[in-house]
Amino acid sequence: MRFTSEQRLADGILEREFTLGEIPGTLWTPGAGPAPLILMAHNNGLSRSQPRLVARARYSAAQGYAVAAIDAPGSGDRPRSAADEQARADLRRAMQAGEPVDEIFESFVGPLVERAVPEWQTTLDALLTLPDIGGPVGYSGWTAVGIRLAVSEPRIAAAGLFAGGYVPRAQREEARHVTIPLLFLLQWDDEGNPRQRALDLFDAFGSKEKTLHANMGGHTGTPWFEAEDKNRFFGRHLK
Amino acid sequence: MRFTSEQRLADGILEREFTLGEIPGTLWTPGAGPAPLILMAHNNGLSRSQPRLVARARYSAAQGYAVAAIDAPGSGDRPRSAADEQARADLRRAMQAGEPVDEIFESFVGPLVERAVPEWQTTLDALLTLPDIGGPVGYSGWTAVGIRLAVSEPRIAAAGLFAGGYVPRAQREEARHVTIPLLFLLQWDDEGNPRQRALDLFDAFGSKEKTLHANMGGHTGTPWFEAEDKNRFFGRHLK
Repeated sequence: MRFTSEQRLADGILEREFTLGEIPGTLWTPGAGPAPLILMAHNNGLSRSQPRLVARARYSAAQGYAVAAIDAPGSGDRPRSAADEQARADLRRAMQAGEPVDEIFESFVGPLVERAVPEWQTTLDALLTLPDIGGPVGYSGWTAVGIRLAVSEPRIAAAGLFAGGYVPRAQREEARHVTIPLLFLLQWDDEGNPRQRALDLFDAFGSKEKTLHANMGGHTGTPWFEAEDKNRFFGRHLK
Repeated sequence: MRFTSEQRLADGILEREFTLGEIPGTLWTPGAGPAPLILMAHNNGLSRSQPRLVARARYSAAQGYAVAAIDAPGSGDRPRSAADEQARADLRRAMQAGEPVDEIFESFVGPLVERAVPEWQTTLDALLTLPDIGGPVGYSGWTAVGIRLAVSEPRIAAAGLFAGGYVPRAQREEARHVTIPLLFLLQWDDEGNPRQRALDLFDAFGSKEKTLHANMGGHTGTPWFEAEDKNRFFGRHLK
């Protein structure tokens, strides 16, 4: 893990860019002492520098968490292949046209999850060697990656998952093996995530402690107080 | 409104029993200054002295709210008729036997809501004359009474509603006219409240700002952190 730049923010947070082999990432750490860690993964490969997501990472850091985000293969600062571009365009077009997207989704996002998860594990290995990161570890964001990590990575103690209407088949099947505490957040009228599928996924999780939060509006309409609620959820399980 | 007893609790909260005509009630006020008010109504006429509910009222008072609870007709400290007893016994028996309960529910709880709502309004009139109660006013608990109050009582600014699987027809129809901010809380496996009906009710509310919280387990299994979340909801709308 090589830090390539750093910036001290007004509230004492240290924001550092890093690379780890091919993986580019950002690490936010609060001013003082070793902090519990939140892995913040963005749905289907949204860039880690998306301002809405950066605001949440900084907010969690201000609440005393170390937060890490990486770009998934073909996303953010990473090279994307012509095939990636084509698949994203196909998915977007089919969704906008209201056509069935399951097969496109499965063939594009399924493999993306398979490639993203080992990168998160490599990143976690590296992060846990840093003196300003303690344990335990929470996960936040991209539902499919979170499911795979929750069933395969015993270092993850709790997860906040977002959306979850479209999730590759493999992770839908793994959901019942998830047993860590979950906060499952969805938007009631999420244009890209059918509500009933998201509710079915929430129902399927094996976790004894799981909480559903739903708010009005579309995919990007999550109210800010959910960022606060998520930190309170992590406060119960990581502190 | 006549106060019949008072008790100063360890954390400065004043807990007073009162009567208002035939209505017995309890009022909790925080130590200092006029406080925003929460009307805490218990589903289907549970006694206001039920320890689980008293604990929540005291917790909200400790967070700076005035909280009032009254016993609904035929509930708690109030005389109950032979017909009330019979209806409650019929409802309990049908639910335990897994029989359809809509008609019993409708004929018993429907009229109970009609009788409870004006009593809450009378109580609200009296409470708002007290020097230690400011505004605005929130409502918490019994879903059907909350719906009726939300559509008929402009003094109610926000409501936290619980359960909501069985709600009388009149209130199911009124739900789309509710426009105040809502926090709708349900238990995912509530034995007395079919999940799909509760989700349909949440969907029906006309409020632009409504949030659903669901947790695992049966009717009485709501985790304590939901009491904290409810106070944070009221904090956004009443303070």
